[in-house]
Amino acid sequence: MISLPSLLERGARLNSNGIATEFLGRQRLWSELLDRVAKLGSGLAQYQLGAGERVALLGLNSDNYFESTFAIPWAGYCVVPLNTRWAVAENSYALKDSGTRVLMFDDAFMSQAEILKDQTDQLEHLIYMGDGETPDWAESYEQIIDTNKAIAPSTRNGNDMAGIFYTGGTTGFPKGVMQSHLAIWASALGAVPDFEITQRHTYLHAAPMFHMADFAGSMGTLLAGAKHVFIPSFEPGLVLDTIAKQSITHTLLVPAMIKMILAHSAATTTDLSSLEKVFYGASPMPAAVLTQAMNLWPLLNFVQAYGQTELAPIITTLSASDHRKGGDVLKSAGRATPVTDIRLLDSEGMDVPLGQQGEVVVRGPHAMLGYWNKPEETAKALQDGWVFTGDAGVFDVDGYLYIVDRVKDMVVTGGENVFTTEVENALISHDAVQDVAVIGIPHQEWGEAVHGIVILTPDYTESEVGALEIELVQHCHQSIAGYKCPKSISFREQPLPLSGAGKVLKTELRKPFWEGMEKQVN
Amino acid sequence: MISLPSLLERGARLNSNGIATEFLGRQRLWSELLDRVAKLGSGLAQYQLGAGERVALLGLNSDNYFESTFAIPWAGYCVVPLNTRWAVAENSYALKDSGTRVLMFDDAFMSQAEILKDQTDQLEHLIYMGDGETPDWAESYEQIIDTNKAIAPSTRNGNDMAGIFYTGGTTGFPKGVMQSHLAIWASALGAVPDFEITQRHTYLHAAPMFHMADFAGSMGTLLAGAKHVFIPSFEPGLVLDTIAKQSITHTLLVPAMIKMILAHSAATTTDLSSLEKVFYGASPMPAAVLTQAMNLWPLLNFVQAYGQTELAPIITTLSASDHRKGGDVLKSAGRATPVTDIRLLDSEGMDVPLGQQGEVVVRGPHAMLGYWNKPEETAKALQDGWVFTGDAGVFDVDGYLYIVDRVKDMVVTGGENVFTTEVENALISHDAVQDVAVIGIPHQEWGEAVHGIVILTPDYTESEVGALEIELVQHCHQSIAGYKCPKSISFREQPLPLSGAGKVLKTELRKPFWEGMEKQVN
Repeated sequence: MISLPSLLERGARLNSNGIATEFLGRQRLWSELLDRVAKLGSGLAQYQLGAGERVALLGLNSDNYFESTFAIPWAGYCVVPLNTRWAVAENSYALKDSGTRVLMFDDAFMSQAEILKDQTDQLEHLIYMGDGETPDWAESYEQIIDTNKAIAPSTRNGNDMAGIFYTGGTTGFPKGVMQSHLAIWASALGAVPDFEITQRHTYLHAAPMFHMADFAGSMGTLLAGAKHVFIPSFEPGLVLDTIAKQSITHTLLVPAMIKMILAHSAATTTDLSSLEKVFYGASPMPAAVLTQAMNLWPLLNFVQAYGQTELAPIITTLSASDHRKGGDVLKSAGRATPVTDIRLLDSEGMDVPLGQQGEVVVRGPHAMLGYWNKPEETAKALQDGWVFTGDAGVFDVDGYLYIVDRVKDMVVTGGENVFTTEVENALISHDAVQDVAVIGIPHQEWGEAVHGIVILTPDYTESEVGALEIELVQHCHQSIAGYKCPKSISFREQPLPLSGAGKVLKTELRKPFWEGMEKQVN
Repeated sequence: MISLPSLLERGARLNSNGIATEFLGRQRLWSELLDRVAKLGSGLAQYQLGAGERVALLGLNSDNYFESTFAIPWAGYCVVPLNTRWAVAENSYALKDSGTRVLMFDDAFMSQAEILKDQTDQLEHLIYMGDGETPDWAESYEQIIDTNKAIAPSTRNGNDMAGIFYTGGTTGFPKGVMQSHLAIWASALGAVPDFEITQRHTYLHAAPMFHMADFAGSMGTLLAGAKHVFIPSFEPGLVLDTIAKQSITHTLLVPAMIKMILAHSAATTTDLSSLEKVFYGASPMPAAVLTQAMNLWPLLNFVQAYGQTELAPIITTLSASDHRKGGDVLKSAGRATPVTDIRLLDSEGMDVPLGQQGEVVVRGPHAMLGYWNKPEETAKALQDGWVFTGDAGVFDVDGYLYIVDRVKDMVVTGGENVFTTEVENALISHDAVQDVAVIGIPHQEWGEAVHGIVILTPDYTESEVGALEIELVQHCHQSIAGYKCPKSISFREQPLPLSGAGKVLKTELRKPFWEGMEKQVN
């Protein structure tokens, strides 16, 4: 049966003398990688924590991070990838919530790890997986590999829990999504027809590896025995440079990253001819950004993946050939992968007629086991094997799914439902707008009013702002109905607050407007 | 989790108003099909046989056969597809061996069913699934559907047994291969990137549906919610006619069928422009036949699937683009599907070095649960999750697998191993040879001698046979080593004996030569 270790063995067998990983000039073959994982797993197994116990990872992207992802289940434990954007208090929460007893960390998180060690009673082992000096309060990653003999992997597999992934969702407190070996594999497998990656290809880990989007990229690349290249963290110039120098063929980027790359001075001058496929997802793609990217790189194949951590994470894909068709289909999230079964349900739990909007509800082998230690939330989100995504969608006759919005992000104004994505797309198509988020703010008469929060492009100065608010609202009237147009716009200089997954944290944006009032929940 | 019923629900949802099945002019929509299966499953459930009990199918290809395949697991039972080429005694054996308590049959097998009823004590129910009058000793398929209300499907899933598939292998007594819901799904899923079938496509069931090769075609078509067209059984003219009239886009044929189609007078005149993909497999494809087919239909995409029932059944695929490359790769069975892990082992169970020959040993979620009631055979064939296929193969550096022969079909002559496929390919490339099988026959000096059994093309008469034996041996010397060339050739008028799976039954061919002697087993 399927397990993360067995998939590593398979990938290594496909290409045993090929390069598995490259990080800051350091290359490891698939055969080496397998050997290192079997030794690291052996060292971890000697802690004798017991089957399914949790080991957390806190680090930037690296080859060691990748190895650890497999060494932990190799030893029979579950991996808990911590969010690198979280503060100490949040990661401390995740460690306690998951009952994690081992923490692996790198140079970037050495001081946070030391604090976490003191704050978290149940932490028994800390492992330093960086390349410098191991602090005296931690064990050395390389020494564990050097001093242990390879062992056979744990037999945990299939529906056994492989990891707990804390959600970077836009609402509520973080929940630990329990994912099985089977689910992680099945989700990646569903994207294989779109991934089209073989041994001769190279995948760049540019998005954070703790997030399930890049985790799926890891798995897809592993399924082909292809090469992994890691950069510590996203930086637009570094991504462009790495693509050119390492002949990257595949990568995964969130829309905000694509936007930053497009805005970078080297975007038009770097040789990206090696690049074959860019996956994007994790947050809605503004139409204008996609158009700009497709115009700048006409030969590149774009694939959209829509999903969420609870589905490990892929639900639908919009294929490269769909992108080439262009037109309205570009607004869709694509079609169910071969492992995914989707229904759209109304508020009474009935299937909506074709063409009508309902909550996206998903079944498949990639569905989560549930939320860790949260039986009530699990019972709400997982019913008879169906995961309730909280997203609202519409199907067209060809099975393309259009995500209209996060159900909970919808603005209800004067009894009309306004889907914020539609308003955001209208605003961002204006030259002056660099980034945007649309929220509902309190309104005495209508309950909520549509409000736009706009970051201007560098060409526009604040002095113009007075006239610009009116101009932007008029601009929206050209493409969307009047009741959907923003009633007010505020301008912002700082970037929009993002979750670890790159999703705009609308709860934070709403907070100042709703202080002291209770927002009506639809 | 994955189950055959949940996959049917998913497929029906993808294309609920589309045509699911067409058989002899009768069309059923996906929504109808789902409803009929839920009612038939309901009727079967009322027999209250208990979870996992066996229900056998004995019939030619039809829409009802397809429905039954899902109605049986819908009721929580396991499907046992009987071999339509078997005699009563053999099917009686399979029914008793599997402990089957319900037999579903059609018009073509009415008299066999009646005999089986009398011979098989444990048969409690017989269901007539044909379109004529239901005999008084059987229940009516349509009446079960008419008189039962749809129920929710059984919750059996994942690793629960879904069916017992009797192998059409070339050696030994039939064994019942136990396959799980997960395995059947996983095998089909591995071929999705090659199948490339969508809602707008139509799959023709031309190969017998009781065999796992077409079963995989059923599943692949279902995964896309595409249309199924059935012909009762293979007949080259009918296949050509159906492709043209029904705008068939996808089908699966065994090499012997392709050969017969190529030999048919309408092969060059029928409009096959709708056809996009032909899968072939289940027995080795003679190079000359493949070349002829690719020359006649240059626009057609051929995909080879190599596998066996024990792997549900797909192990490797040789993609359409591999076929277009041409050259030596056409001799390979292709590469591991994304769900398949392959090792080549020597007789001591060690991995052979790259480029050397070893037994093909396969692991994955599509591995059988074991052989029904045969713990010893299971222990031999299934070790630590690895299935020992009995085939000998070689990997090239790009991961293409070359099947050199059935391990047990190898001829050992004067200490040299001769792989019969190689000799057969040499013989069939001669104009006079319509079909061929190479076997080892007793030889005092060498142990075995290579012997060819040849069926001549209609253009050659028996009178020429004397000179022809010498000519054919000389012809072989042009392409293969002397020790591999047949030492003798016999000519045969009847077709070669085939197993249900279309494999040449070499045991039968060897029998007359080895009578009274014991063949040395390697």
